[in-house]
Parts: sequence; C-alpha cells; structure tokens
Amino acid sequence: VNFLPYELITKKKQGIANTPEEIRWLVRAYTDGLVPDYQMSAWAMAVWFRGQNDEEIAVLTEAMRDSGEKFNFSSLGAPRIDKHSTGGVGDKTSLIIGPIMAAAKVHMPMIAGRALGHTGGTLDKFMSLPGFRIGLSPEEFTENVKKYHWSLVTQSEKICPADRKFYALRDVTATVDSLALICASIMSKKLAEDLTHLVLDVKFGSGAFMKTFSQATQLAQTLKATGERNGVKVHALLTNMNEPLGRFAGNALEVRECYDILCGQTAIDNGRDYYEPTRELSLALSGQMFFILGRATSAEAGVAMAREILNSGAARAAFENLLKYQGPTQIEKLPEAKFKDDVRVEASGYIRQINTEALGIALVELGAGRKKAGDELDMTAGLEMCCRLGDQVKAGQCLVKIFANSNRDFARVTELMRAAFTIGPTPPDELLPLIAKVLT
Amino acid sequence: VNFLPYELITKKKQGIANTPEEIRWLVRAYTDGLVPDYQMSAWAMAVWFRGQNDEEIAVLTEAMRDSGEKFNFSSLGAPRIDKHSTGGVGDKTSLIIGPIMAAAKVHMPMIAGRALGHTGGTLDKFMSLPGFRIGLSPEEFTENVKKYHWSLVTQSEKICPADRKFYALRDVTATVDSLALICASIMSKKLAEDLTHLVLDVKFGSGAFMKTFSQATQLAQTLKATGERNGVKVHALLTNMNEPLGRFAGNALEVRECYDILCGQTAIDNGRDYYEPTRELSLALSGQMFFILGRATSAEAGVAMAREILNSGAARAAFENLLKYQGPTQIEKLPEAKFKDDVRVEASGYIRQINTEALGIALVELGAGRKKAGDELDMTAGLEMCCRLGDQVKAGQCLVKIFANSNRDFARVTELMRAAFTIGPTPPDELLPLIAKVLT
Repeated sequence: VNFLPYELITKKKQGIANTPEEIRWLVRAYTDGLVPDYQMSAWAMAVWFRGQNDEEIAVLTEAMRDSGEKFNFSSLGAPRIDKHSTGGVGDKTSLIIGPIMAAAKVHMPMIAGRALGHTGGTLDKFMSLPGFRIGLSPEEFTENVKKYHWSLVTQSEKICPADRKFYALRDVTATVDSLALICASIMSKKLAEDLTHLVLDVKFGSGAFMKTFSQATQLAQTLKATGERNGVKVHALLTNMNEPLGRFAGNALEVRECYDILCGQTAIDNGRDYYEPTRELSLALSGQMFFILGRATSAEAGVAMAREILNSGAARAAFENLLKYQGPTQIEKLPEAKFKDDVRVEASGYIRQINTEALGIALVELGAGRKKAGDELDMTAGLEMCCRLGDQVKAGQCLVKIFANSNRDFARVTELMRAAFTIGPTPPDELLPLIAKVLT
Repeated sequence: VNFLPYELITKKKQGIANTPEEIRWLVRAYTDGLVPDYQMSAWAMAVWFRGQNDEEIAVLTEAMRDSGEKFNFSSLGAPRIDKHSTGGVGDKTSLIIGPIMAAAKVHMPMIAGRALGHTGGTLDKFMSLPGFRIGLSPEEFTENVKKYHWSLVTQSEKICPADRKFYALRDVTATVDSLALICASIMSKKLAEDLTHLVLDVKFGSGAFMKTFSQATQLAQTLKATGERNGVKVHALLTNMNEPLGRFAGNALEVRECYDILCGQTAIDNGRDYYEPTRELSLALSGQMFFILGRATSAEAGVAMAREILNSGAARAAFENLLKYQGPTQIEKLPEAKFKDDVRVEASGYIRQINTEALGIALVELGAGRKKAGDELDMTAGLEMCCRLGDQVKAGQCLVKIFANSNRDFARVTELMRAAFTIGPTPPDELLPLIAKVLT
C-alpha cells in the first residue's frame, strides 16, 4: 500500500492519529528516500504540536527498530538487561553498574553512544583508555556477552538507520524536543538490543533535556509504556540533574572517579564525600535492576546486594576483566591533563542555582565534548566540582577546577563556568533529592 | 547579518514572533537556496500552528514582494485598481469588471493566475479564445494599461520568486491553509502590481478555501490590514461560495456567460435568471471599486454607475476592444463542447447542501482544470447549473448539465457530481446571501 505523505501530515496537523499502517509506511519510505526531508520535517513539527498517542509512539518505535539490523540474544536462554540514561553532565553510572551486573552474572549487552551536545557519552569515556576497542564485530560482542556477561559496542549504522536519518533532520529543524519523538528514538535503539528488562535513569533539571520534574515524569511514563508494549519490562528512576553528578565531569576524569569507587575509595573534603552521589545512584540503579530481574525481593534488597558486590571487590575485578577482553588496556594508561586551574567565587553567598547545561557547554569548549560529529576530543579535559548546590561560599573560594591538555581556552571557559553559578544572599528555597521518584 | 534557521524555527514554535530582520533574512536566504526546504517547511508548519502577528505578516508580504521584479505605473500619474478573488467555482466576475472599469477609464492592470486545484483561473478563461495572448511583454502590458486602461498578463517567473518557491513547498507539506501564509502569498503578488487601490472578493463556503464565514472574515481583515500597511487602500466583500456562481463553470462556458451579460442578455428558466448572481456580484464589486476610488459617493451609487455602463453597451465594447488589442480574436471563435449530458436527481427532496469543492474537483476530472501544473485543458469542459441551493427537486429532474469534448469520463463525473448534492426531505435551515458583508 502507498500513502500520500501530504495526507499523513494533514491528519497529524489536524490532531488526528496516524494509523499503524501509515506510520510504518512513512518510516520505511523516509528511510528509503521516497519521502523527502521537507515532508518529514513538516510532519515532525506537526507531531511536536499535536503529540502522538501511546499506540502511535509504540508503532513509530517498532518501525524505527525494524528499519535495520537487530541483535538476537535468544540463544543465551537468559534475561538481558540494560540501563539507559537520558543524559546529563558527569553522568557516569554505567561504568559502575556494568561491573556490578557482570559480577552478578547478569547479561548486560550495552550499545552505547558518543557524547551528544552538552551531555557525555559512555563510549567516549571508555575511549579515554588507549587500546579500548568499541568497534567490535557483532560476533565478538555477542561472544563477550555470553562469556563475560558484559560488553560494550558502538551503535552501528546498520542499527535503526531510520532513527539515525530522522534524528539528524530533527536536530536542524527544532523538532528534537518532542516527547513522542524522543521516546521513539531512545526505545527503538533499546528494542534493537533484544532486551528483556530495562531500567531507565530519566534526568530532570538544569543539565537534563527535560528541565522540569513533570516533563521528565511524562517522558519516563511514555518510555515505560512503549517498552512494555513491546514485551520489555521497564522500571524508571527520576533523578536530579540540577548539578553535575558526583565529583568529575570529563572523559578520563569520570573513568578515574568510577574506578576509585569500584576500589572502595572516597573523596572526602570538609566532611563531604564528593563520590557519594555517583556511588549511591549507581547502587540505586543496580538495585532496581536486581529487583526487576527477580534477583532481589525489593529495590532496597537489590541495593544491599549491589553494595555487597561493590564492597567485595568483585565489581572492580569485572571492570579490570573488561579492560582485558575489550582492550587490552589498563587503568594505569588513563591520561592526565597537563593544565588545571580554579574557577573562583567572586562575591560571597549561597549557591542558589547551577546552570548545569551551561557547564556542559563550557566542557565542550574545553574539548571534553563535540560541537559537531567527528570533532576530536581532549580526553583529559573536564571539571571537578568543589561545591554543591545550596552551599555557602566565600569570595575567592574554588567553585570548580578545570582540566585540559591546553590552557588556551581557560580564560573564556572560566567565565562561562562562573556565569553558570547563581550566587545570592539566601540559600535556595528547596533542594530536590538525587532520586526523586521511582516508577515500577 | 546572518541568522540561524534553527533559532527562527524555535522562536516561532514557542510562540515568539520573528523579528522583521529575521523574516527578511529568511525569505532572502530561502529564495537564494541558503535555507533548505526541510527547514522552511518546519518553519511553515510552526507558523500554521502559531500564526503570525500583523507586523510579521506585513514584513513577510513585503519580503516576498521584494524578492523579484515589480511593476511601476507611477508614470501613469493616476490611481491603479485591481480586484482579487480568493477563488471559487464559476467565479468569473473579472471578465465583466474589467470591461466596466475600462469603459469608465479606470486603470486596471490585471496580473492573473491559472486554474488552481478546484478553482478556476481568469487567464485560462481568456485562453479559451483562440488567439488571445497572455504572455505580453512588460512593455506591451504597461502600454495597454496606459492606452486602453485594462490589460491582462500572466504572472512572470520574475515576479515574487520567493512566493513561487514557497508556495510549491507549502503545497506538498500541508501548510497552504495558514491565514498568515495565504495572506502573504496573495498580497505580495498584488503589491508587486504597484496598485493604489484594491477590492477583495473573499469567498466563504463549500467551494472556497475558507469554509466558514468567520475564517473568511479573518482572512479579509488580515489582507486588508496588510495592504493598508503597504499604502494600498483596500475594501473587501465577503461572498457566498456555497454553490457555483451563476450559470456556468468551465473556461469557454464562463466566457460565454460573461459576454451574454455584457450584451444585456438573461438566462431565465422557471422565472429565475441564472445569470443574475454573476451580474449582481460583478456590479457590486465594480460599485465598490468606484466608491473606493472616490468616483462614487457610496457603494450603492457606484453600483448604479456600473449598471449604467453595463446597460449602455460601453462595457461590451471595451471587452470586444480587448479581444482586438490582446489578440486579435473574436467571441465567435469560442469553442463549444462536442458532448453534453444531464446529471439527474435520484430521489425527490430539497437541495440541502452543495459540496461546491467536489463539483470543482469533478470539473478537473472533466478536463476543465489541472491536476498538476502543465496539464492540458479541455476549454469546452464545464457544467451548467439547472438548480440552486434550497430548491425543491423531483426524481429525474436535471441538477446539472455537463459538457466536454470527450464523453469518456461522463459516467464517473456524473457520479461525482451527483454525490456533491445533499438532497433531503426538508429545506436547509438558512441560506446565506450572496454578499454577506462588506469591509470598508
């Protein structure tokens, strides 16, 4: 059956749902180049305004999943779980969760992404270890998952080509921030992983794509519903991205933080452990994963299990093992920045707000992220948080340390970072918890 | 100054007005190919949802007018007026208004269009006269206007190229029916005519682009405001397109109807003159033109003046004169259809509704209009109305006669036409007048 793109756009524009047949045809015809970009972008804008109902989102997701190759882990004869975060600054929990799952012999095939905009990417973090290989063949990846339970691979061009093409179009036509389209983009790739279970870390706040808790909750519900329509069991944590997560943001620095945590280390300053948020969120997500898999009777019991695996050193061993079979490389090869500098407080007061997205953009300027696909990264570039939201700070005190292999942009980045902090005479009215809500 | 198309789309999407500089840049950059179709269509869809304020519409209109060549009639040292109709079925008043204006020595440069969708085009009607020339050089056109007061020319590709390119894109991305974009498209071309006065015939009803009176009124107000922001005095008539206008629809048939009216003839059947609506609307528009030009002290006085010119034979002479200087051709050359047939009533009742757009689409099937640009027309194809909305009709009675040079599609067209009539046991609740409102 052929449809007229004009009719499909008109329906959506008028608030009428597209049928499953229409959506499947549209995705196929767009991927094949039969529907031109200018019709697809008009449709995307109509979707931005009208949204999609649950069935439309599920069908769009499936159609994008089915636009390319899919993994097939049925021969494992065991559940496969993944964790997906909607992205943030310093968001590095995968590097701790993966080892915990591997140590618990839970299969975790991780198809990971590169840095996107102001947010980091798990693959880039691992790539800061010279010798780490992300371009595994599907065979080697599958073999690793079978043998070691945990492996990472870059998203191949053969997985979800429809999403790849459509995302690039949305990116230049201001249609990225549509709940329906975000959901389909995320879930199509997750479904192509042939998962049985998924735990989502949906971020809200100044460093997240969803700025408000209510938007993030809506996205979490939609992602969960879409996954479950496709037979994947999904739980979601709504977590706080109003400040960077933990101590460091930046590729090699984040690997260091995670390895320290896997080794049982802390980063205590003035009675506060700057590693705590990363550790606790990683354990909460891991605990939720044990719970959803039925390995623990509650999320709390799951967290206790995860903490025991972390404390036992088994997770550290699993991480070091990964560096062997997906390298070989060693943690000692992690590069360190040639330059570092302090971003200092100008006028005393309370940290009322942190524009975390602005910090992420400053990190891109420093070389820790990409302005456009293909940009080279400075793996050593990053920041260290020396304060937290709500802290009382004095003029001259260090807010953030910056790191990079070149100090060329330090003056500019210092200004960008300083401008990201709102410091005022009174503390902020309310500080939201790190984990604000759990959808099970 | 360069703008980012992404930012312009985002603003409009969020309901923020684009600045005049942004709109001018967008039109220029799109026309020059610097902004791709896929960004322009996303912007157009955002405009469809959010609309534009009066300033945005005025600036868009000016920017499209300024994208190409413009006429300059300042050397005339006299007012120039045009009439513009938003289009309908059997809408042929230009062929009577032009001669009336010419006879009154009012300058009327008419840049006319081809048939569009289900609506007819003035140029196609004249082209049914073999030998009539529409592709005059700007010099000959200007000379004609100076000498004979009235001339017609086809829209050259050099006039409003931005509108030409943008309209083609809107046509395939379901963004034609935006009040702001319709207004800018119409008025940019009218402003390029270098008019001083304009009378609009804004159609509402089943055969118009604007189906409701309130939509049409909004469009009329917006067109008027945009024209007046650009120094053109504008009046608008809101007129009824819930049934075809007058007796005939179809190119040669409409010329015949107009020439008959110019000759003072009637088409009386059962005590009703089927020519009356065409004659009266033409006189109303002509009267409004005399009024807006200050040649008459009221619209009513203007209508009396126009009626006198019509009755005197001076308008007929002006029409015949046009056929000489813009031909040469003669009315006797008007072709007649080889075939005709009756579309008959199936079950007795009252004509409660006429889907006039469906009649227009059936006319396209018959060859009277184009499915796509460049399609050849059958100049003899058309319909004759043998009833009017609200009439009581009996089974077997003729609703409509169809005409064409081939009867190949008669069975199908008969069905399409019959389906366009809703016949029921009671008369329609309300019949709107031919001229529902005048905006002065």
